[in-house]
Amino acid sequence: MMISDGLGPASVSFARTYYQYINKQAYDYELPLDTIHVGQSRTRSSSTLVTDSAAGATAFSCGLKTYNGGVGVDPHGKPCGTVLESAKHHRKMLTGLVATSRISHATPASFSSHVKDRDNENAIAVQQIGDTPLGRSVDLMFGGGYCHYLPKSDPQGCRQDERHLFKEAQNSKNWTTVQHGDRRHWDQVPTDDPSVLPIISLFTSGHMSYEIDRDHAKEPSLTEMSDKALRLLAAGTQDSEQGFFLMIEGSRIDMAAHSNDPAAHLYDILEYQNTVALVKSFVDQHPDTIMISTSDHETGGLSLARQVSAKYPKYLWYNLFPRLPHKKMILNLFYFDRYPDVLKNVKRSTALLAAQVLKQTSDQNKQKLVADQLGIQDMTKDEMKTLSGITKVKRMDQYLAEMVSLRSQLGWATHGHSGVDVNLYAYGKYIDELRGSHENVDIGHIISKKLNLDLDAITHQLNKHDSSFHLTPITQSVKVEYTDHLDQYHHNEGLLHHPTLI
Amino acid sequence: MMISDGLGPASVSFARTYYQYINKQAYDYELPLDTIHVGQSRTRSSSTLVTDSAAGATAFSCGLKTYNGGVGVDPHGKPCGTVLESAKHHRKMLTGLVATSRISHATPASFSSHVKDRDNENAIAVQQIGDTPLGRSVDLMFGGGYCHYLPKSDPQGCRQDERHLFKEAQNSKNWTTVQHGDRRHWDQVPTDDPSVLPIISLFTSGHMSYEIDRDHAKEPSLTEMSDKALRLLAAGTQDSEQGFFLMIEGSRIDMAAHSNDPAAHLYDILEYQNTVALVKSFVDQHPDTIMISTSDHETGGLSLARQVSAKYPKYLWYNLFPRLPHKKMILNLFYFDRYPDVLKNVKRSTALLAAQVLKQTSDQNKQKLVADQLGIQDMTKDEMKTLSGITKVKRMDQYLAEMVSLRSQLGWATHGHSGVDVNLYAYGKYIDELRGSHENVDIGHIISKKLNLDLDAITHQLNKHDSSFHLTPITQSVKVEYTDHLDQYHHNEGLLHHPTLI
Repeated sequence: MMISDGLGPASVSFARTYYQYINKQAYDYELPLDTIHVGQSRTRSSSTLVTDSAAGATAFSCGLKTYNGGVGVDPHGKPCGTVLESAKHHRKMLTGLVATSRISHATPASFSSHVKDRDNENAIAVQQIGDTPLGRSVDLMFGGGYCHYLPKSDPQGCRQDERHLFKEAQNSKNWTTVQHGDRRHWDQVPTDDPSVLPIISLFTSGHMSYEIDRDHAKEPSLTEMSDKALRLLAAGTQDSEQGFFLMIEGSRIDMAAHSNDPAAHLYDILEYQNTVALVKSFVDQHPDTIMISTSDHETGGLSLARQVSAKYPKYLWYNLFPRLPHKKMILNLFYFDRYPDVLKNVKRSTALLAAQVLKQTSDQNKQKLVADQLGIQDMTKDEMKTLSGITKVKRMDQYLAEMVSLRSQLGWATHGHSGVDVNLYAYGKYIDELRGSHENVDIGHIISKKLNLDLDAITHQLNKHDSSFHLTPITQSVKVEYTDHLDQYHHNEGLLHHPTLI
Repeated sequence: MMISDGLGPASVSFARTYYQYINKQAYDYELPLDTIHVGQSRTRSSSTLVTDSAAGATAFSCGLKTYNGGVGVDPHGKPCGTVLESAKHHRKMLTGLVATSRISHATPASFSSHVKDRDNENAIAVQQIGDTPLGRSVDLMFGGGYCHYLPKSDPQGCRQDERHLFKEAQNSKNWTTVQHGDRRHWDQVPTDDPSVLPIISLFTSGHMSYEIDRDHAKEPSLTEMSDKALRLLAAGTQDSEQGFFLMIEGSRIDMAAHSNDPAAHLYDILEYQNTVALVKSFVDQHPDTIMISTSDHETGGLSLARQVSAKYPKYLWYNLFPRLPHKKMILNLFYFDRYPDVLKNVKRSTALLAAQVLKQTSDQNKQKLVADQLGIQDMTKDEMKTLSGITKVKRMDQYLAEMVSLRSQLGWATHGHSGVDVNLYAYGKYIDELRGSHENVDIGHIISKKLNLDLDAITHQLNKHDSSFHLTPITQSVKVEYTDHLDQYHHNEGLLHHPTLI
């Protein structure tokens, strides 16, 4: 199960046409997802027409619509058994989670834990190591977010208690390999030795880097993590009749779209496409595998078009037409610009760059840094003035992203999610049932059916002894203050007493 | 072949969720297209990543990518034979065109004519009645746009010459039934008597009305026109081994999106969905039929989300959350609003209303008209001031549309087209080849293959005697000045010496 968080239909077209243009490919050159398109997924949650990632992932994991913010719980806040849990406990399959976000973030959390509020990541981490009525359900976790596993007293911890979850995992929850920190230890884990399972490898304190910013020496890519996960889970099940269930998430496609940062969005999509190619080749070699790829929702309301002046726009996104991004910019009729080139010149995510720009002591240095890192050589006086006046990282992030989006003629409607149906892809055996337009919950049902799972039974097992295990309170005092500004997008949401429409 | 001009993925989700909400249907209630989703169509033209309708329809009709503005011609401006022409002349099928635009507008024109510039509608009309090297190719035309068929001296004519194409059609091109004006004559045409074929019925001088504005006594709906077309073409082929090829276009879905008018857009989509239901039921009764429905491109860059303030938005489109459309609007925390309701209260297209508002002699009357027709009871002082200052119909149209869009939390990126892949639907026999993600030209190829057509041969026949028949010059003096402001969207485009990327 692959999830491209925040990848809407326009983003799919965007990345393909960019790739074709930059690599001088013909118009009918296809990216890995294009050849396995089977339909669309309709994403509304139980509380609104525009879902969040928690309700979006719970639709896949539990096969039910829940309210925005609910992780592995039904609209009444009651834990619902997931396909991962049923695969583990009913079918004795191996299970894994790979994500570029914190592993306790909404999407991976919705397969492996049950909390009423997605912000309660400390409780999610506790459940992920196996402290639930079912015991341990996960055999492999690769991703970011180790701060939720470390005690308050640890300089790198962001828990509000003294639990050291890595120690607990090893001592009482029978995890074999537990690592955190850069990729060195992880690189040494053999891919053909299933005795390293169960394994936790978390590479960063918070989210892993955007692909555009990633230090290859410190963090593996989504494709590298997925490759190792597939090899280990395949090795661990090679002598068994049972297979494995692996969830792979391109988590930060969504976060770049929250910033409206086209380049960071693009690189994370292209890396996700790389991972899709890898998984397809795994399926080719293991033809009894089903791969599904879809998104929980669209983010940003991206359009491959943008009205940059009151005058009716030519259909601009890549056209042999003079560039007129700004009223005050000098009209140069002989300067023909291709908009994808604007993005080719970007070297950093605007989220990362924003903090660096704010550290500069002079306006000149700020402009120089922006020119160098975003390739913007034609900053207007108005833009320079605005840049100088910004003092907050989030605002700077959004403004830098806006400067790039304007020049690349890309429109965004929001810094949040939107309600458009997202694309559905599948590869391997028995995928016919996935063809067409589906409710997102159908995907959970189809996984359950194909793997012969029993979501009702696992829900019963989960709740029968202690139906309140998931009710760890989340109060202001346990809310984590992340340094990563992006989290405020989700933290401001809160819960609207999870009303249900259904 | 059904074409929903300008219907992108977000518009599909938009109309479904609106319909579900207003009609109190469950979240999994499906509209007619939803059950026949098979894939997507990738829309770039030979000259840009964002196509226009001429290049978009030529991809379906000729199975080739051409430049924006080119109607039934290749990237070098040479006429290309269409599926409709091959169906008529090689397979002896009956053929028909149904559209709510002028019948000489880009989409129907690209199946039935060949001109280097879509604005040359007078030349298109000449070819549509049969004045081409192939002779008459069309057996049925229902739609708008009779002004291009009437001579300059006719008060209703917009030709630049004295040709009366309706007379020519009847006298020398063997059309049996030729009508223009309101639906009275058309209503009397029997549906079971194929001797009325070939038939031209054009109801309006320019485009037909938006569904939201339509006078049911004067103009038939898209569904009514399609029903009569299907019955006549089926009756005309019932004793034959050959069938028919019918192109049905929901033309003005696109134009409402050009205005960014959500309600007009919505009603034209829902009427298109009605037509889809009709065609599906025809296919059920005639199981040897293939129905395909897709769009040439998306229009407007619609998002089901909109950032209405700097504060991070809740996922607003239908949420149980206070309404905050305007900074200056008084915050009423206890006023819970459902955004689809905003659209339910709209009674007119903003294009039609704009002209009426400008005719009002007092600001008070303007505000009253807007309140009454758009259901806007909470106009701000700023909005009132802006409204008073607007003097042009196009600007008024856009501003009224913006007032509705803001209140319904819908975002638009442009008044033009965008480059997102559009949905592809199919129903009937032999549709498996249409599954998945396709280039738009594949759809032309698949039609050609399924009907056993020969596009190369028809292209040869078209050009062998007179390869310059299509080169009717279009100069400023023959450009028509439409009273319908929407045409300026297309008229401003011109041709960029049709460069090709391919």
